[in-house]
Amino acid sequence: MSLLIVGSVAFDTVETPFGKIDNALGGSAVYFSLAAANFTKPSLVAVVGSDFTAKHHNALKRKGIDLSGLQKTKGQTFRWGGRYGFDVNNRETLFTHLNVFQNFQPELLPHHREKKYVFLGNIHPALQLQVLKQIKKTELVGLDTMNYWIEKNRPELLEVLSQADVFVINDSEARELAKEHNLQKAAKKILEMMGYPLAETGKFARNKTLIIKRGEYGLLMFRLPFSGKKIKGKNLQTFHLPGYPLEDVLDPTGAGDSFAGGLMGYLAKTENLSWDNLKKAAVYGSAAASFCVEKMGTKKLEEVKAFDIKRRFKEFKNLTHFAV
Amino acid sequence: MSLLIVGSVAFDTVETPFGKIDNALGGSAVYFSLAAANFTKPSLVAVVGSDFTAKHHNALKRKGIDLSGLQKTKGQTFRWGGRYGFDVNNRETLFTHLNVFQNFQPELLPHHREKKYVFLGNIHPALQLQVLKQIKKTELVGLDTMNYWIEKNRPELLEVLSQADVFVINDSEARELAKEHNLQKAAKKILEMMGYPLAETGKFARNKTLIIKRGEYGLLMFRLPFSGKKIKGKNLQTFHLPGYPLEDVLDPTGAGDSFAGGLMGYLAKTENLSWDNLKKAAVYGSAAASFCVEKMGTKKLEEVKAFDIKRRFKEFKNLTHFAV
Repeated sequence: MSLLIVGSVAFDTVETPFGKIDNALGGSAVYFSLAAANFTKPSLVAVVGSDFTAKHHNALKRKGIDLSGLQKTKGQTFRWGGRYGFDVNNRETLFTHLNVFQNFQPELLPHHREKKYVFLGNIHPALQLQVLKQIKKTELVGLDTMNYWIEKNRPELLEVLSQADVFVINDSEARELAKEHNLQKAAKKILEMMGYPLAETGKFARNKTLIIKRGEYGLLMFRLPFSGKKIKGKNLQTFHLPGYPLEDVLDPTGAGDSFAGGLMGYLAKTENLSWDNLKKAAVYGSAAASFCVEKMGTKKLEEVKAFDIKRRFKEFKNLTHFAV
Repeated sequence: MSLLIVGSVAFDTVETPFGKIDNALGGSAVYFSLAAANFTKPSLVAVVGSDFTAKHHNALKRKGIDLSGLQKTKGQTFRWGGRYGFDVNNRETLFTHLNVFQNFQPELLPHHREKKYVFLGNIHPALQLQVLKQIKKTELVGLDTMNYWIEKNRPELLEVLSQADVFVINDSEARELAKEHNLQKAAKKILEMMGYPLAETGKFARNKTLIIKRGEYGLLMFRLPFSGKKIKGKNLQTFHLPGYPLEDVLDPTGAGDSFAGGLMGYLAKTENLSWDNLKKAAVYGSAAASFCVEKMGTKKLEEVKAFDIKRRFKEFKNLTHFAV
């Protein structure tokens, strides 16, 4: 029951064909924490400005999130504006004001340095490395990134990637990082970047898992298991889960972060890193993400209860299983 | 073990980034039959020209397909040319020469009129209706169509749709037919077109199943089951299966027809129309389709054996199932 998330807190202005919100609580670390809080008590490390009020604080506190790592500084909180059309897979960024986020230096408090499950949200890879250096002994490091860092900070990204156990990205990012269109081939290349080529030295003896998100089409999860000293490239483990079928997607903002939060929250709760449990964690993550998009902003995630997520987990089984 | 397919036999010229074939045996009824032949002995009704040789005949005969309904007439067989780029979901039609297919009138032989499992391949809906009129008593009518008929022959298409039990189309066709972007909503509308609004009269007491194909993203299958006289709209049954993950898709031509052939072949063999068995049939169809695309044209489907398909069926389980 020990999960740390370092990422962004933001105020989002979002327009979709179904609604609009202005300066609403958002950011990757917020969506992540709200989803993870259904399974464990996540500790959030991020920076906010003086416009971050008690109301915002309470929305997170109510869900049992540890906010001792939330740095309050002078200035405005990170603000993002975006617009979606009817095809929710495409979004247009209207503005990005980094504000206080520009000078963010993640400083972990003593009790954060003891955390075993760590998620490095989508921030500069140099900051992600800085976080890892402060932690005593991790059991599972989860990692997110985006096209911007793949293009601008590849060496630092590859460094942090080699220290990650679970890497969560979307399909276009996977293709760009691997320079390969076919997702199976891209997955193998990325798993190699995560450390498999060095596996025979025993240096990367931890299992490496890659999760490729495909929006409404769901996800693909890959793992290349060890077999003694030999890497069995043929034995690539693959799991597919569709997106939960929804009639109305009101606002896809935060779906990927909610997925990661549900995934990491469930893993931190169960402390079981078997392939079977990773698959369950991915289903719980998808369930959290499916709720996230049903209302504008964080509204639905704030309302949803652990048993709602459990129910949707079972619906995923009905949706995907068949008799053999 | 009684399956009839009416559709097209063609000679295809196909270019992909990985290869090229000229005037190779193809057409919806050919791909369908080759896939279905792994489960049952399908009877093929179609028209070919005098350029259809013993070599072509034998390629189908070897798989145990009943060719007594293959009408040989003067002129050239239907020819189609197409090209695919690296994104195999998009194809460009280079030419379509209907040739003898232009005057095709499906005339069933006496033993074809006894068939209980019938698949109406993608031909003019008026011809599809003509086929149904000649059959004594069906147990399951499967139906395919395309955007062209949706746009040009909607009334006749709706007529044949109301007589179909299993309707197989792709996602863009579903959206166009239902005039609805969201696939869940589109599915409900199409199931209504298939006969559910009249269910209380008992006129359409057969279960209606809709399968929406999404290329590499797999398929969605929907069924609205009866509960006595009341239609339970809330009880929509939904099944999702991903595409089988392949590193190399050489030629996607015929994948949809192979899917339908595997699906209908398995249903005709097992004579079981339960939801559980429909799901299994969809997995067998997807297994057949995944083999189809591994080589150019019909080559792989001609080679593949029933146990290969059975093996891939099991791989689909590993890919999609998780512990609960």
